[in-house]
Amino acid sequence: MPQTTKAIVIHAARDLRIEDVPIADIGAGEVRLRLATGGVCGSDLHYYNHGGFGAIRLREPMVLGHEVSAYVTELGLGVDGLQVGQLVAVSPSRPCGNCRYCAEGLQNQCLNMRFYGSAMPFPHIQGAFRQDLVAMASQCVPADGLTAGEAAMAEPLAVTLHATRRAGDILGKRVLVTGCGPIGALSILSARRAGAAEIVATDLSDFTLALAKTVGADRTINTAKDPEALAEYSANKGYFDVLFECSGAAPALSAGIMAMRPRGVIMQLGLGGDMSLPMMAITAKELDLRGSFRFHSEFATGVGLMQKGLIDVKPLITHTLPLDRAVEAFTVASDRAVAMKAQIAF
Amino acid sequence: MPQTTKAIVIHAARDLRIEDVPIADIGAGEVRLRLATGGVCGSDLHYYNHGGFGAIRLREPMVLGHEVSAYVTELGLGVDGLQVGQLVAVSPSRPCGNCRYCAEGLQNQCLNMRFYGSAMPFPHIQGAFRQDLVAMASQCVPADGLTAGEAAMAEPLAVTLHATRRAGDILGKRVLVTGCGPIGALSILSARRAGAAEIVATDLSDFTLALAKTVGADRTINTAKDPEALAEYSANKGYFDVLFECSGAAPALSAGIMAMRPRGVIMQLGLGGDMSLPMMAITAKELDLRGSFRFHSEFATGVGLMQKGLIDVKPLITHTLPLDRAVEAFTVASDRAVAMKAQIAF
Amino acid sequence: MPQTTKAIVIHAARDLRIEDVPIADIGAGEVRLRLATGGVCGSDLHYYNHGGFGAIRLREPMVLGHEVSAYVTELGLGVDGLQVGQLVAVSPSRPCGNCRYCAEGLQNQCLNMRFYGSAMPFPHIQGAFRQDLVAMASQCVPADGLTAGEAAMAEPLAVTLHATRRAGDILGKRVLVTGCGPIGALSILSARRAGAAEIVATDLSDFTLALAKTVGADRTINTAKDPEALAEYSANKGYFDVLFECSGAAPALSAGIMAMRPRGVIMQLGLGGDMSLPMMAITAKELDLRGSFRFHSEFATGVGLMQKGLIDVKPLITHTLPLDRAVEAFTVASDRAVAMKAQIAF
Amino acid sequence: MPQTTKAIVIHAARDLRIEDVPIADIGAGEVRLRLATGGVCGSDLHYYNHGGFGAIRLREPMVLGHEVSAYVTELGLGVDGLQVGQLVAVSPSRPCGNCRYCAEGLQNQCLNMRFYGSAMPFPHIQGAFRQDLVAMASQCVPADGLTAGEAAMAEPLAVTLHATRRAGDILGKRVLVTGCGPIGALSILSARRAGAAEIVATDLSDFTLALAKTVGADRTINTAKDPEALAEYSANKGYFDVLFECSGAAPALSAGIMAMRPRGVIMQLGLGGDMSLPMMAITAKELDLRGSFRFHSEFATGVGLMQKGLIDVKPLITHTLPLDRAVEAFTVASDRAVAMKAQIAF
Repeated sequence: MPQTTKAIVIHAARDLRIEDVPIADIGAGEVRLRLATGGVCGSDLHYYNHGGFGAIRLREPMVLGHEVSAYVTELGLGVDGLQVGQLVAVSPSRPCGNCRYCAEGLQNQCLNMRFYGSAMPFPHIQGAFRQDLVAMASQCVPADGLTAGEAAMAEPLAVTLHATRRAGDILGKRVLVTGCGPIGALSILSARRAGAAEIVATDLSDFTLALAKTVGADRTINTAKDPEALAEYSANKGYFDVLFECSGAAPALSAGIMAMRPRGVIMQLGLGGDMSLPMMAITAKELDLRGSFRFHSEFATGVGLMQKGLIDVKPLITHTLPLDRAVEAFTVASDRAVAMKAQIAF
Repeated sequence: MPQTTKAIVIHAARDLRIEDVPIADIGAGEVRLRLATGGVCGSDLHYYNHGGFGAIRLREPMVLGHEVSAYVTELGLGVDGLQVGQLVAVSPSRPCGNCRYCAEGLQNQCLNMRFYGSAMPFPHIQGAFRQDLVAMASQCVPADGLTAGEAAMAEPLAVTLHATRRAGDILGKRVLVTGCGPIGALSILSARRAGAAEIVATDLSDFTLALAKTVGADRTINTAKDPEALAEYSANKGYFDVLFECSGAAPALSAGIMAMRPRGVIMQLGLGGDMSLPMMAITAKELDLRGSFRFHSEFATGVGLMQKGLIDVKPLITHTLPLDRAVEAFTVASDRAVAMKAQIAF
Repeated sequence: MPQTTKAIVIHAARDLRIEDVPIADIGAGEVRLRLATGGVCGSDLHYYNHGGFGAIRLREPMVLGHEVSAYVTELGLGVDGLQVGQLVAVSPSRPCGNCRYCAEGLQNQCLNMRFYGSAMPFPHIQGAFRQDLVAMASQCVPADGLTAGEAAMAEPLAVTLHATRRAGDILGKRVLVTGCGPIGALSILSARRAGAAEIVATDLSDFTLALAKTVGADRTINTAKDPEALAEYSANKGYFDVLFECSGAAPALSAGIMAMRPRGVIMQLGLGGDMSLPMMAITAKELDLRGSFRFHSEFATGVGLMQKGLIDVKPLITHTLPLDRAVEAFTVASDRAVAMKAQIAF
Repeated sequence: MPQTTKAIVIHAARDLRIEDVPIADIGAGEVRLRLATGGVCGSDLHYYNHGGFGAIRLREPMVLGHEVSAYVTELGLGVDGLQVGQLVAVSPSRPCGNCRYCAEGLQNQCLNMRFYGSAMPFPHIQGAFRQDLVAMASQCVPADGLTAGEAAMAEPLAVTLHATRRAGDILGKRVLVTGCGPIGALSILSARRAGAAEIVATDLSDFTLALAKTVGADRTINTAKDPEALAEYSANKGYFDVLFECSGAAPALSAGIMAMRPRGVIMQLGLGGDMSLPMMAITAKELDLRGSFRFHSEFATGVGLMQKGLIDVKPLITHTLPLDRAVEAFTVASDRAVAMKAQIAF
């Protein structure tokens, strides 16, 4: 058995390398995996393009990646429910199970979270973009019947299912989605699955808006070209019941706030820094602005919904490149004019 | 203009007549309608087969019917948003708008409700199975793009959308439906639209269970033939997250209670008399048994979801008979071995 | 009967006059009232000190006042449930009862609201600071057993009860209150009544903080003198379950956000303009920032709680001045170093 | 150090003995306790009077008791936050921390619960009525400032706080409590703490009703003497917003159902067998019947509320007897005509 495996390692902004890293031992309750597919996420791109975001900065080399599917190659002691050869979606979320928030069932708020590919604590939490990966069996959800690419979409899909669940009643409601990258597009799929009657989506890129329409948006607005279109919805205190804010941009959130009807619910998924918000509108219309961050049980939920054909993410996978073209995958993923989700085939 | 119109009038159990009744004047805010289609509901069948149910008894002749679609033939003063010739779904719900519950937005609990075809107050509230009908414009939801039969399904669909909305989070959940008449079958459609991942349905009729599968049940159980099948789900405190109880039968509810996981939600739609329930299971598993009755805003919601193709009720309309065969429609609708929803074309 | 009555009229910033205004006729369903007590509210002070706030500006003379109690002097046709001579708390909220939001039970979001003493539409909605006032009987809640001053506190108390109800589960929870003017102090009373276990309050004035302690705060922090004290609560992702933000000041809200535990609920009562907020903390901790505006059913709720002795607002009434010293009442009410609630005895 | 300690052991119905049982070793994370006070609970009485309840039967001798306070006498390895000599309330709830429900934060629904003094699994879970008790430190909540008797009330108080929290919005609401034993009386205290405006309580015993009034009921009804009094509340669809059903008796629950207003919430705390319920009223009024069972975080919450003086349970402790009169304590506790809560001083 080889002693090393290939991994995608970020050293600094724009310094991404395919390197040999040591393979790990397998312990009880763990499985050894051969990576199938890895999706490039916005946070991966922040490390690649900027070396971090906000106060979170790279301080040592880090294996990237947290959207992965894999084939099981070996079962550790005591593992059941999985089989060698099986395709699995691998959750990057590893809560401690013991802190106050884990005990409350809020595992995504774990005080000791070790989420794949995060520079937040130091030493950094190494990621999953490596051909040979050892994971806990509990991270692995059987993905029989899915393509490896679909299975690798389980992670971002879980993010939007988590937000959709937290948004409350969506059945028959009017939904606005601001920002149509992968999270925005998956929010459209999730909201439609939860019964949204009308979905309007905004972005600055015609390419992503066309895909938004493909996956279910009733209307799309390019706010770069048509900056006033959303304002139509502000009459009589506003129109939308639910907003999925996926851009992390203050102008999108502010425009969304003005378009919300009283008591509307805003799910904030987009990550951004400080933003200036129209607080008078939030207060007087009694809006409900809720942060939404990662996921927990929704990871398995998403795999199940894809397996049943109840959510179809395939149109969103616009690029699949082999491992040796990983840098190219990061480059293309950074360009919203041509890419939605770029994946790497390991 | 004629002075009378044909109506379907119940005089007593098994005494259903097609009679001439006076046409009504049209007032401000009202519309005159030519009935298109009327669906036969379980409560209509109770009047037809038994002259009432429980303490509610027929005491005078009553026009039946509350699931209707119609074409607009005349607009009263001040009506806008509707056009002559347009197909509309007609809501049978006429809350007063002024009582305590209307003021709280609980119009379906109105203290002065005048719901079509109800023997509850006396004089009875006359129903909508009449060729010429005058209704408030606010009862009419434009149904362009739907068939008259679909539009007449808006009422029972609203009942299940109301229950689904009240059930809370269904996205990715396990749902049990007990009783697969029209309300059970529409609950399957509504639950799937709201994101249910797995749906198991029970009934005593193979005919209705086959249709339940057509509209989305993952598994069906004929509890007459396989009385122990549901008990499989009781291990480890239970399996299902949500139960739509649509039979109104105590054995179905009790079996469902045992199959629910802790904190599961039971929506009781089926109407029945006193029932003996396993209260220890309800208490110890902290189940949540919620009555669900009629609807309000969900009437328009359902029309919209059908128009968008997000819910398809057509497979459930098994019989359509002309007005002069109305008695036959009531007879066939009473037989669950051959009929799901029987409608009358006016 | 006299043809005019004395009223407190604002003409422009710092131009407040006691004038004779015409008395109104009494209609069916209305009552004539002799004003007892009127409380000076923050919005009254904005008109007095600045001629308005934000985009809302005085454009014509306006009777001020919306926190009032009164004695019934005459009953209009059809009024029952009230008696001549009875003390009543008078709700300044007059929703239309017919718009979309009224029909949903969200009367405080009425599209056609006529709230006493508001310059928002033009002509302005005249206020209640007038010795002879005609109101709808439905605005009047019997206040037997209360002092006139207490009854005049029903309005701001309703504001905080509305926010408390919307905050969800408070029983046994940790509560932070930022800004301890009358709304902050009443939030302390409301949160304690709803079962808050621990209440920390912040302000810039020692005077108001001392009163905050009197009405139930466990700890008070003068953030002018001790700007770092609140930061202690930020460790391990934060401490408080619920925040009542009553200052309308961005620094208070931002400091509060950092002190909230994950999934904490922030009720925004304070009115302010655009604010720059730490959105990363809101998103990553999945905070829930909810606007809270005015009230509806909580007006009568508050009167009842005061009558039962379950909430005691008397310590908050720091000044009571006669009508001819109304200008002085506005001046003292503007000074947080010496006044909590200033009232005018009519 | 002695090898045995005195314990209260039930052998069969009416066969209660004070016996010597082996003392336990203390392990890491554990504490040794000298029992202070133990309250006699309804389930203890079922074992004493009937040898069990429903399908749950004594099959071997079992130490009774799960409402206890104690003094810390020894700290196991790694224990901090507790001190020798300190009074603690000891939670009898020992969830596994690993099952599906523990992971969801529903520890009271743990699949592997080891709750003190339960005959449900076999071998039975031994209880806490023993002078020397070894417990996990995590079961112990410091109770400084409370009497030992108050601290022993933390367990039943937690039961009612759990139900109150699950009942949702109670602030300013009308509450009915059926059954005024200790759980009913503590429900009154909990509901009032959560802001109930009006509380009506029913029972068959004037003694318990007098205490119900002492702790906050506005009105009490002896349904044995005045069986029609509750029916007054049924007009116009009903009156109460929330019902705490603490009797476990079908007539009480049924009468309560008729007195509830539409959308009212019924918390079922009383344990009973199968009950015949008026399902038509539940369905048509859309009532919400929720089981409530045990507690989790509310144990510490209750201790805190008592320490702050926000809940006063002392009036409910009607009898305190020494260990050698334990049998007498069980006898008196069985008689609702003279006892509310009987406790044993160890």
